[in-house]
Amino acid sequence: MVIAGIMSGTSLDGIDVALCDFNTEADSMEFKLLVANTYPFQRTTRQFIEKVINQEISVSLISNLSALLSELYAQSVIELCVSAGISLSKIDAIAVHGQTVYHQPTAVTMGEHRVRSTLQLLDAPLLSHRTGIKVLFDFRSADIALGGQGAPLVPIFDKAYFRNRDKDMICLNIGGIANITCLPAKPEQRIKAFDTGPGNMLIDLAMKYYFSKNFDDKGHVAETGTLQHDLLMELLSNGFIFKIPPKSTGSESFGQHFLAKIVSQHYLAEDVITTLTHFTVESIAHNIESFCTESGIIIVSGGGAANKFMLKLLHKRLPDFAISTSDTWGIHPDYKEAIAFAYLGLLNIMRLPANLPEVTGASRRTILGSRYEM
Amino acid sequence: MVIAGIMSGTSLDGIDVALCDFNTEADSMEFKLLVANTYPFQRTTRQFIEKVINQEISVSLISNLSALLSELYAQSVIELCVSAGISLSKIDAIAVHGQTVYHQPTAVTMGEHRVRSTLQLLDAPLLSHRTGIKVLFDFRSADIALGGQGAPLVPIFDKAYFRNRDKDMICLNIGGIANITCLPAKPEQRIKAFDTGPGNMLIDLAMKYYFSKNFDDKGHVAETGTLQHDLLMELLSNGFIFKIPPKSTGSESFGQHFLAKIVSQHYLAEDVITTLTHFTVESIAHNIESFCTESGIIIVSGGGAANKFMLKLLHKRLPDFAISTSDTWGIHPDYKEAIAFAYLGLLNIMRLPANLPEVTGASRRTILGSRYEM
Repeated sequence: MVIAGIMSGTSLDGIDVALCDFNTEADSMEFKLLVANTYPFQRTTRQFIEKVINQEISVSLISNLSALLSELYAQSVIELCVSAGISLSKIDAIAVHGQTVYHQPTAVTMGEHRVRSTLQLLDAPLLSHRTGIKVLFDFRSADIALGGQGAPLVPIFDKAYFRNRDKDMICLNIGGIANITCLPAKPEQRIKAFDTGPGNMLIDLAMKYYFSKNFDDKGHVAETGTLQHDLLMELLSNGFIFKIPPKSTGSESFGQHFLAKIVSQHYLAEDVITTLTHFTVESIAHNIESFCTESGIIIVSGGGAANKFMLKLLHKRLPDFAISTSDTWGIHPDYKEAIAFAYLGLLNIMRLPANLPEVTGASRRTILGSRYEM
Repeated sequence: MVIAGIMSGTSLDGIDVALCDFNTEADSMEFKLLVANTYPFQRTTRQFIEKVINQEISVSLISNLSALLSELYAQSVIELCVSAGISLSKIDAIAVHGQTVYHQPTAVTMGEHRVRSTLQLLDAPLLSHRTGIKVLFDFRSADIALGGQGAPLVPIFDKAYFRNRDKDMICLNIGGIANITCLPAKPEQRIKAFDTGPGNMLIDLAMKYYFSKNFDDKGHVAETGTLQHDLLMELLSNGFIFKIPPKSTGSESFGQHFLAKIVSQHYLAEDVITTLTHFTVESIAHNIESFCTESGIIIVSGGGAANKFMLKLLHKRLPDFAISTSDTWGIHPDYKEAIAFAYLGLLNIMRLPANLPEVTGASRRTILGSRYEM
């Protein structure tokens, strides 16, 4: 079964598409990544999305942006297939996350009612008609309807693909925020999944501020600076890092506002990058040691997998763990989320539940995703 | 197959639910209306929807209102089943229109793109989880994706239920706006469906203005007044009535603003009600005669079906037509739209296309509706 997974995350950098060929006969989860690519958003598109997220919106913008994004998703799938010489008719389904513009898993009052909701923009019939492929979408609402957080959804993929009977496995995704899925070797032990703190977000923002660059390529800048211990202590005193999971965070905690307090202290630019890299490593390491396991295998994905200096620090800080990037396990670090959504699509088609109540807090397991089919 | 059709229209009066038992073995469309009811919106709910329609919104309101409405849809289905002693497990699917808050079938520019979209608020997984029933929804987007207007959708129900080889049939729905589906006896003739002008909207507004009543019960007030010919001529000079179809209209044309020009002329209250009733009748009659057929059977549904005086005038004005209300054909006049949506749900389940390109303008027929199933 060939499924195109589409992820466009809150980083607003673009549309990740991963074409996955699943072996539905295999006992364990088996698939081949046929091809994958990222299609960047144009500036105007990013601005439309930012407007909605910042609540400067009209209902027409919500409705028309859903259509626009679906046209772009369709273009991305078509371009990927054309570039790879794969016929669209070979694709069984598109599993698409949609663009999150609102996520409120804790109840708010509306009139006499208490409601909880999440909103991913998408026009599924449009995407389906432009590609000729059936579309699976809205993967978070069912879990929220059952009292869950509607997130994280990737752990079921981690469980199916990485769980190992001999070793504790930790899937570490270093995106803007860093998150981990802890997969204990013992089947009776609970799977945990939560955010550990900043991933690349603060480093990226500081690189932009000091060097007008988007990120610290391979960690070269961090390698040249000197760790500032007092600054690191100050950063770690942030309440989130030592908080007991489940927990989640975002740019509201580790974004521009957080960085502003650092740059006002007049450290050397390189030293800030170095110290922020240590901060990310220390927050990841602390959370793994305190809340997951004392030894095991760490599999790194996300943009941070390319930061060689960060991985070197992580090796040093966690000597009892084997650390490798997800590509050595057959998962391209940049497309793990898009691949995971293709897998969520597969579970929907196979009519299998896809939420893990132990990590989302939902009252029970359920099938995730709605479907439009011509 | 038992399907619950749910309609909540732009009148914002509440949620119509119709439980329909379709005979899927029959050659022609056959069904039994098991039970139906209207569940009025609370004032706060109506205000939330009005806010969104009037573009005084936030993305949180859009998201949370979708959840709220879905909770209310679920309550309505559950209450209807409890009151009728029907087990929820007997219902095969819920086919729900959702609450329209935006409808833009003509293209608008977004960045470098031209997009067309419609937005019906709904949280399908939530509705499904509260009722335990699979949910069919978003019936308009696929037709719009194919270049159609996404409306009207009821004509395929009219065609399946009312079309007759011997007589031209006209399905006349007198809601706030009046619309007709013209079903020619000859199968080679095209089906037409369009708005004819005001239905009860102006009469209702005038009843509220003059008598603080919501509507003219059975047409009793209109019966006591005198037709003011000069006012009727003025009303008919409105461009819409004589316009060639396809055409559609709404409260922006025949609402408060239109009424304000009438009440400023100091006619007697009863005479205004009488003349507005004649206006509705004349606009319906003209459109049927000019754009449908010279004789046939008119089947009336909607709130106007209860206005005996209006029906009497229509009889007099169209002597070559047989006129009856839809209940004599087995369709409760108040629940025709909810029943039609149950039928659209049936077509989705049977994987049959449900748009009529001849009335919507779409480039081809397609399956309408997305699905969430636990």
